[in-house]
Amino acid sequence: MKGKTMNELKIGDKASFEKTITETDVYLFAGITGDLNPAHINQVEAEKTIFKGRIAHGMLGAGLISAVLGMYLPGPGTIYTGQELKFLAPVRIGDTIKAEAEVVEMIVEKNRLKLRTCCYNQEGKMVIDGFATVMPPK
Amino acid sequence: MKGKTMNELKIGDKASFEKTITETDVYLFAGITGDLNPAHINQVEAEKTIFKGRIAHGMLGAGLISAVLGMYLPGPGTIYTGQELKFLAPVRIGDTIKAEAEVVEMIVEKNRLKLRTCCYNQEGKMVIDGFATVMPPK
Amino acid sequence: MKGKTMNELKIGDKASFEKTITETDVYLFAGITGDLNPAHINQVEAEKTIFKGRIAHGMLGAGLISAVLGMYLPGPGTIYTGQELKFLAPVRIGDTIKAEAEVVEMIVEKNRLKLRTCCYNQEGKMVIDGFATVMPPK
Amino acid sequence: MKGKTMNELKIGDKASFEKTITETDVYLFAGITGDLNPAHINQVEAEKTIFKGRIAHGMLGAGLISAVLGMYLPGPGTIYTGQELKFLAPVRIGDTIKAEAEVVEMIVEKNRLKLRTCCYNQEGKMVIDGFATVMPPK
Repeated sequence: MKGKTMNELKIGDKASFEKTITETDVYLFAGITGDLNPAHINQVEAEKTIFKGRIAHGMLGAGLISAVLGMYLPGPGTIYTGQELKFLAPVRIGDTIKAEAEVVEMIVEKNRLKLRTCCYNQEGKMVIDGFATVMPPK
Repeated sequence: MKGKTMNELKIGDKASFEKTITETDVYLFAGITGDLNPAHINQVEAEKTIFKGRIAHGMLGAGLISAVLGMYLPGPGTIYTGQELKFLAPVRIGDTIKAEAEVVEMIVEKNRLKLRTCCYNQEGKMVIDGFATVMPPK
Repeated sequence: MKGKTMNELKIGDKASFEKTITETDVYLFAGITGDLNPAHINQVEAEKTIFKGRIAHGMLGAGLISAVLGMYLPGPGTIYTGQELKFLAPVRIGDTIKAEAEVVEMIVEKNRLKLRTCCYNQEGKMVIDGFATVMPPK
Repeated sequence: MKGKTMNELKIGDKASFEKTITETDVYLFAGITGDLNPAHINQVEAEKTIFKGRIAHGMLGAGLISAVLGMYLPGPGTIYTGQELKFLAPVRIGDTIKAEAEVVEMIVEKNRLKLRTCCYNQEGKMVIDGFATVMPPK
C-alpha cells in the first residue's frame, strides 16, 4: 500500500469515499472526542433545534475527507498538513455521505498539494466544502 | 444545558478539554471514518515512516476542538460553521492532548464568533493550530 | 478542569446530564460488563417478558449519575465512595434519560457529601432513585 | 436460557464473573455514560491524584456485579430492583476483577432475594462491597 507521488498526480485527479452515517458512528465519535453536545446525543433537546433532531458531528464528516486523502488520493504515505472546512448543512443519522477530493494545485518543488474537498449527502446537497493541503509520499 | 449567548461572551474568553489519546480511540476513529491509512493502524509500516510508529488521525485532535466548542465555549446550542486547521506535529498513541479555544473576534450583528483553536501535547508543544467560526445559541 | 471544593458547595446545589440511550450504548455496555442477559440483547426473548422488549442495563443509567458527579457536581477530583440505587422502572432503547444530583447533606469535617441521585425518562417518570456519597476535591 | 426460581435457590448460593479491565473498557464506558472525568481518561492529570494514574469508573466494576446477577445467579429473567455499593479501592487499567454474589436473604412470599455483592482485584483485595436486591424469574 503506497500512495501516489507528485509525479503520478495531476490537476483534476479525483477520488471519493462514501458511507452511511449511523447512530453508532455518532455515539462512538461523541465518546472518542468528548463532544457530548446534546445536538448529537439527546433526541429530546435536538428536536427543539432548527435541525429537528440529532445531527452528526461536523468533524465526523471531515473524517471522511481524511479517509479519501489517506487511503486513495494521494493515499498511504501522505502527510496531512492542513484543512479548511465550511459546514454548510447538517448531516443526519442515516444520511449517506460522499467525501470527494480533487487536486487543484501542485507546488512540485515543495512537494505540496492542494485539494478541493467536499462532502455531499444522498440528495447531492453539499454539506461540507473546503480545501486540504497535503504532502504526497516521496 | 445551554451554552453562552453573544451577550455572555467577550474577547479573550477561553475554555479547554484534555484527554489521553489511546489506541482504542485511534482504532475506533479509523473504523468510523474509514481512514484506515497504515500510518494509523499498521505498526510495521508506520515504523518505516518519519514518525517511527502509528500516529492518531489529525481529525481526531480536531474532534477535541469540537468538544470544547460544543460543550463549553459557547457550549450547547452552538452552530459550527467553519474550521481552519494546520496539523503541525504528530499526535502519538498515549499523548495527552489539550484542545483550547479562545474568542478572538465577535461579529455581534451576524451572531458570529471567531475563536483561535489550538491543541497541545503533554510537553506543551502545539500540534494543531487554527480558527473556528461558530454561531452561539440565541 | 477542577471540581468544587466543600467551601464552594451548599445544600440544594443541583446538576444534571441527559442523553438518549441507544442500542449501541446497550450493546457496548453488555460487552464491557459481560452482562449479556437476554433482557438486554435478545429481542425475541425480551418480547416475552413483562417489559415487552429489550431494556437498558440499570447500571447504564447509574453510569449517567456517575457522569454528573464526576463532571459537574462536585466535578473533577471527586472521589466516589458509595451509591445506593433503586431501579424503579425500565429504561428502553431510545429513551432520553436525565440524571440529576442534588446535595442533601454535608459532613464538612470529614469532607463527605451526600447527594440525592435520580434518573428520569423523557416523560418525567423517575426510573432510578438513590443516594451517592462522595469526597469533593480539596 | 432461564435463571433460577426461588425454589431452586438457597441461602449461601454463590456465583462469580471475572474480567481483566482494559483501557478500551474504560474509554468506551466513558463515552457511553458521558463520564469523561480526567481521573478516567487523562493520564497526566490522573498521575497527580492519590491514585497515581487513570482508574476505571466505579460503576464499571458494578456492571460486573450486574453480569453475575443477570447471567448466573439468579440468571436470565431476573428483575434487578436495587443495589448498594461501597467503592473501597480503585480499579486500575489492567486489573483483573472478580465480581461475586452470594444469596444472604430470601423473602419467598414477595419473590425477593438479597445478595451480598463484592468485587475483588487480582490480589484478593476487596474493591467494591454491597448488597443487591432482585426478583428471580417465576
